[in-house]
Amino acid sequence: MQTQILERMESEVRTYSRSFPVVFTQARNARLTDEDGREYIDFLAGAGTLNYGHNNPKIKQALLDYLAEDNIIHGLDFWTAAKRDYLETLEELILKPRGLDYKVQFPGPTGTNAVEAAIRLARNAKGRHNIVTFTNGFHGVTMGALATTGNRKFREATGGVPTVGGTFMPYDGYLGNATDTLDYFEKLLGDKSGGLDVPAGVIVETVQGEGGINVAGLEWLKRLEGICREHDILLIIDDIQAGCGRTGKFFSFEHAGVVPDIVTNSKSLSGLGLPFSHVLMRPELDQWKPGQYNGTFRGFALAFTTAAAALKHYWRDDSFERDVQRKGRVVAERFQQIAAWISEQGIEASERGRGLMRGIDVGSGEIADKITARAFENGLVIETSGQDGEVVKCLCPLTITDEDLLEGLDILETSVKQALS
Amino acid sequence: MQTQILERMESEVRTYSRSFPVVFTQARNARLTDEDGREYIDFLAGAGTLNYGHNNPKIKQALLDYLAEDNIIHGLDFWTAAKRDYLETLEELILKPRGLDYKVQFPGPTGTNAVEAAIRLARNAKGRHNIVTFTNGFHGVTMGALATTGNRKFREATGGVPTVGGTFMPYDGYLGNATDTLDYFEKLLGDKSGGLDVPAGVIVETVQGEGGINVAGLEWLKRLEGICREHDILLIIDDIQAGCGRTGKFFSFEHAGVVPDIVTNSKSLSGLGLPFSHVLMRPELDQWKPGQYNGTFRGFALAFTTAAAALKHYWRDDSFERDVQRKGRVVAERFQQIAAWISEQGIEASERGRGLMRGIDVGSGEIADKITARAFENGLVIETSGQDGEVVKCLCPLTITDEDLLEGLDILETSVKQALS
Amino acid sequence: MQTQILERMESEVRTYSRSFPVVFTQARNARLTDEDGREYIDFLAGAGTLNYGHNNPKIKQALLDYLAEDNIIHGLDFWTAAKRDYLETLEELILKPRGLDYKVQFPGPTGTNAVEAAIRLARNAKGRHNIVTFTNGFHGVTMGALATTGNRKFREATGGVPTVGGTFMPYDGYLGNATDTLDYFEKLLGDKSGGLDVPAGVIVETVQGEGGINVAGLEWLKRLEGICREHDILLIIDDIQAGCGRTGKFFSFEHAGVVPDIVTNSKSLSGLGLPFSHVLMRPELDQWKPGQYNGTFRGFALAFTTAAAALKHYWRDDSFERDVQRKGRVVAERFQQIAAWISEQGIEASERGRGLMRGIDVGSGEIADKITARAFENGLVIETSGQDGEVVKCLCPLTITDEDLLEGLDILETSVKQALS
Amino acid sequence: MQTQILERMESEVRTYSRSFPVVFTQARNARLTDEDGREYIDFLAGAGTLNYGHNNPKIKQALLDYLAEDNIIHGLDFWTAAKRDYLETLEELILKPRGLDYKVQFPGPTGTNAVEAAIRLARNAKGRHNIVTFTNGFHGVTMGALATTGNRKFREATGGVPTVGGTFMPYDGYLGNATDTLDYFEKLLGDKSGGLDVPAGVIVETVQGEGGINVAGLEWLKRLEGICREHDILLIIDDIQAGCGRTGKFFSFEHAGVVPDIVTNSKSLSGLGLPFSHVLMRPELDQWKPGQYNGTFRGFALAFTTAAAALKHYWRDDSFERDVQRKGRVVAERFQQIAAWISEQGIEASERGRGLMRGIDVGSGEIADKITARAFENGLVIETSGQDGEVVKCLCPLTITDEDLLEGLDILETSVKQALS
Repeated sequence: MQTQILERMESEVRTYSRSFPVVFTQARNARLTDEDGREYIDFLAGAGTLNYGHNNPKIKQALLDYLAEDNIIHGLDFWTAAKRDYLETLEELILKPRGLDYKVQFPGPTGTNAVEAAIRLARNAKGRHNIVTFTNGFHGVTMGALATTGNRKFREATGGVPTVGGTFMPYDGYLGNATDTLDYFEKLLGDKSGGLDVPAGVIVETVQGEGGINVAGLEWLKRLEGICREHDILLIIDDIQAGCGRTGKFFSFEHAGVVPDIVTNSKSLSGLGLPFSHVLMRPELDQWKPGQYNGTFRGFALAFTTAAAALKHYWRDDSFERDVQRKGRVVAERFQQIAAWISEQGIEASERGRGLMRGIDVGSGEIADKITARAFENGLVIETSGQDGEVVKCLCPLTITDEDLLEGLDILETSVKQALS
Repeated sequence: MQTQILERMESEVRTYSRSFPVVFTQARNARLTDEDGREYIDFLAGAGTLNYGHNNPKIKQALLDYLAEDNIIHGLDFWTAAKRDYLETLEELILKPRGLDYKVQFPGPTGTNAVEAAIRLARNAKGRHNIVTFTNGFHGVTMGALATTGNRKFREATGGVPTVGGTFMPYDGYLGNATDTLDYFEKLLGDKSGGLDVPAGVIVETVQGEGGINVAGLEWLKRLEGICREHDILLIIDDIQAGCGRTGKFFSFEHAGVVPDIVTNSKSLSGLGLPFSHVLMRPELDQWKPGQYNGTFRGFALAFTTAAAALKHYWRDDSFERDVQRKGRVVAERFQQIAAWISEQGIEASERGRGLMRGIDVGSGEIADKITARAFENGLVIETSGQDGEVVKCLCPLTITDEDLLEGLDILETSVKQALS
Repeated sequence: MQTQILERMESEVRTYSRSFPVVFTQARNARLTDEDGREYIDFLAGAGTLNYGHNNPKIKQALLDYLAEDNIIHGLDFWTAAKRDYLETLEELILKPRGLDYKVQFPGPTGTNAVEAAIRLARNAKGRHNIVTFTNGFHGVTMGALATTGNRKFREATGGVPTVGGTFMPYDGYLGNATDTLDYFEKLLGDKSGGLDVPAGVIVETVQGEGGINVAGLEWLKRLEGICREHDILLIIDDIQAGCGRTGKFFSFEHAGVVPDIVTNSKSLSGLGLPFSHVLMRPELDQWKPGQYNGTFRGFALAFTTAAAALKHYWRDDSFERDVQRKGRVVAERFQQIAAWISEQGIEASERGRGLMRGIDVGSGEIADKITARAFENGLVIETSGQDGEVVKCLCPLTITDEDLLEGLDILETSVKQALS
Repeated sequence: MQTQILERMESEVRTYSRSFPVVFTQARNARLTDEDGREYIDFLAGAGTLNYGHNNPKIKQALLDYLAEDNIIHGLDFWTAAKRDYLETLEELILKPRGLDYKVQFPGPTGTNAVEAAIRLARNAKGRHNIVTFTNGFHGVTMGALATTGNRKFREATGGVPTVGGTFMPYDGYLGNATDTLDYFEKLLGDKSGGLDVPAGVIVETVQGEGGINVAGLEWLKRLEGICREHDILLIIDDIQAGCGRTGKFFSFEHAGVVPDIVTNSKSLSGLGLPFSHVLMRPELDQWKPGQYNGTFRGFALAFTTAAAALKHYWRDDSFERDVQRKGRVVAERFQQIAAWISEQGIEASERGRGLMRGIDVGSGEIADKITARAFENGLVIETSGQDGEVVKCLCPLTITDEDLLEGLDILETSVKQALS
């Protein structure tokens, strides 16, 4: 495989190509192929961007049909038939069945753009600058979003410009099982000299992907919603990684029965890995004036098309959800077994997650890296997350076949045993 | 045309659909078609994103070929054959022939992302927080980029959070023809109590697109480069709108013979309107540590593919450049005539631009709006720019046929006369 | 009493004159007299500025002696005999006996100025922007200091400019007695994605005056010092209110046996109520370049003179400390009785404090206000603190006579009973 | 002279003691005496803090009278007889005769505190965060004030925290005599994409003291006032150094006939060098809520007393003003002669100033330092200002005797000739 020009010309900022130093060429559902023809099962799935698998034939066909004629590809924020079809589909298949009433903003096709728009919306609506976010939260790295992202790797790379306007609170479980971390948040909200500027909004992931597959309890989320209501604070759920079915529901917050004021989606939203994002907001929050937020690619018609196709093929009824939940249980069970085995070796390990967003916490990044390196040798692409990379995580396509899922799990188990023996 | 759902569900932030309230469906080169089958000549071209026209068949074919097999579509920042091909092509056809030696970062597929990465790179490299930018500059609206964007519409919509780390200097011509605005910048640089924090970098567009087709003189750009060198400041050229041939050269700064330390490209970079951007940097500036800047869609293989195809088809020799320059002269001449006619009506008007990035300044947004509204009725999509929208601008596809170009110009002339009579 | 011009001309920002709407004219030790000749016992003492009482004759005599000749009064940062005498006295009577080795900065004569200098010093020394501060902390209201001050009254009055560079942690006891709040701080320090930017310094009051007479445990302070050492973070003790003997030691941190890297003093430092402050720093931290921090009144020779006199008269041996401790016990005992009585009335109340910095927490500002209003009627000036003004606090002069102390306590007790009956 | 302890214990931040490395002990009017009994004429006068001279006997007597009884010295923001007397005197002798109607805030006794309060007031009143300030302006170094101070020495010593909320415009004359710098400001105000956030206020010195005795033209100031009125921007005159008679009028803005919305005074306000400041504001701007800005020393009764005495003795009629103007002409004439002589030596030099705030610009700090060092040897304390310290400035007491003034000028002339021969 020719990699010289890649090593020479691409910035040192590259990361995944260090863990998986091969040139990938082809991919189908949960299988990746490198240039030498070697196949890998993919438990990373574009970091949660390929919930419907690589080259999903149903979604891809919609793209090919669209491209077959000279349909408009790039449409700024024009009205296009593709956008209209997406909005209709979103309303019909997703919002209405869930009793949700949202307006939709297309802020530019990346998650960080959606977060920038969402927190600006909250600030403008409430006339307050502060946004509460949580330990180990990840919401993007552009400067506005970065104020809500906990990772020092990014926070220390701003060239000395401190972020402005975010305050971190402890996420559910951060202080141990005995402590409800919202007690602290609520106490600070009620404290006139506690140093917490009353926030315009709270931004939260129901399951923290980059932060280490940390799972917020459903009661905790419900209580958080209640605190927000009581203090006139907007609840923003960042569903960029946990949404689009990843946790076993279209929106990850459905499990908790909360109704956010603002929702951000991206990653798997386009269905095929195309850049795409939207912000959903309660209609009364839509106080934007024309053009107050913009971006060149906010009308990428190919993504509207594939996104609508994904909804149409997977979200007409609850069968897809149920299948994801079933696979989630398979992974959970197997991860628990693996974690138990690791613990038996004297390395404390535990399983956690929701739906098909699951991880094994092995306590150290070094151990996790050994496992994932061995897995890659054995034909499995799997990554870590968490502050130290200590969680081996499974973000496999939701559409993975049972055969591939089981084979992937087998490889992982083997790799764990090889790595830790 | 069904527009109810669009009006009901899409956020009030929408803009272009207010000026052009139709549903567009198809598009080919410089022609747009709405749902009722009406055709429009497109002098907007995705705000400079469609330099090669809508549905460019050569570029599109590369996309279709790529999609014909299960080639990887979304690759995070994996090494992929598509990325490698893009880098090889970029080096061979663009960088080497121009004597440029740059490393390449893919920071996420939007221009604002590229700017965020570029200014962070400059700050980290120089250990200073300030970035000098220019009046009427536009570099994106995420909070980091917004510090360098002059438009109050965006700056006042941050929900009360001031931007940090940008200082505005007067752009070339801002203080009239008699004043070299760099005198002020240079004086401040040398003044220990002038209030200017020594900047890490200067970010500049050689022609300001959103700002009103303001054209920096070649001597001014050369002097700016000299000032940067002398004061150890990095020169960042934001070529997101002016690059990819728009001004008659691949990079807009080639006209001035300057060599920036950092370059941002996006918009037309993918060739087909797909979200895509890169940051070019002198190799010694590439001090990123792995993963210090990230984003989900930084390895969008479809865009690598179409971007490489665009380079291969249009940039093997200088024939495309020469054709753009020729068309630029056609537009310039006609715009001068139109401007002269307007001036004769007692409304002072003037033409300006470089290559096919040209405008007629009619002095007020109200008048410009009348003209573009009439043009739309007459079958021409054309937009305004400038602080008050006072410049009617032509950003037609570089690939526009002579017939369409002339017809578009005819429509514009007719519309001007109708609007101002 | 003529108050019209005061009401008409003085800004609405005035506060104490609302609680005590009389014109004060004379004052001696712990007694204030208003224009009508009415006397009040003073349990406020300039909010801790008059530890040695009003018009302390020994200190005042030094001032009069100094003024008797044409000694220099205002000396910028010249070397003056008055400054030299102060430094010698400080070293001889305070630093050496306590085994402390500090350099001294005179940053301007107010506490907030000292805090601005201290946190800037820490940031410059460590090359990090963040300063950790604590819930209910008060460190001044100029924009730099305000980043470390918890009170919303000030934080919300900045005209929309968010403070930059401070992060709040829970103070000792904030989460109840069962929780050591430093667990949270330590966890965040060790968490690479917890959102805590590694701080340059921690700023803390050992007893929070404005925050509600919250007392940090000695073990907690010791542990905090250890955490700072372990993580290479500077420990800044803000001893502006708690210092100069208020807690029964010259420096309030002596009780805990910690040695701060930086100390701020002001308020009672001049001994007579003259504006004065200094910053003490470990010598190796003194990396200021000449003139990097300035202010017109940093060489106020009258304050050097009275400050030296105060040290000479009260700090030659430990008799003053012991007397303060004794009086502190008297107040503590009486406050406990009063708190117990209040609790018996069904209003939960408790006593807390260290030395002569003591308060009764009555749970609500409304109740506390009733008590202090009644006390004022009865001839006692006493104020509240805490986020809701819920703590009736005693900051009487340390030099108060036993008679006045007991009379003041009697008045308070009577007032409590009148107010709550 | 014993200086060891001063060198050992005082922070390296000290400055004036480097230029004048002696221990000063006594001082009277315009004469300073060091510990060895050597006398110096004082052309620095506490950097403009001692307009009425050292140990002014009339003002000092008021202090001694006040101290003779147990009058209250430190009064927080209580109503005191001393404060009332100051307000009455200020109204009667200063405000009324000038037709000014202001409310008064005592924000803490330093200039930077007054500036912090003033800009916060403006921001709160207008609901905008930006404050426009000018090149070479100096308004203090606490973080809020520093946003409006141009000097890099301070701006680069914040430990990496950028200031927020200030924008610099070119001061009068900054771009040469041919350019009215307000053209640029006005253009930016009217430019919707020029990058200037519409300011809440403009803060300006009519003569820049630290910035190099730069004198704003009276027409320029008048035009600035007009621009502020037209754009609903508050005009804040920082009269901390130029006020209290320094320019030949009590307020320096009287010359131009402008009426600021907000005024800051400090330095010579107390008359005797005691820390003191106030903020004057149009009554309708006094929207502070009780206690929104505070500080321990905002009721320093000794300063109220001396400040009232200074007004009573010097501002009952215009004789003092006229005397200052006369002396100003003496200095101006002599400075012109000296500047002419310097220019004859091939070093371009020029005189400038207003009233007794005057300087000779010798073009380089090195030359200026030679002159002031030689002057000190010859018995004259005189300092430099300007971005490079290139201006030898005279800020002698306004009360200086004609003999001392002439002797000081003679020494300066001799020193210039010695230094440059």
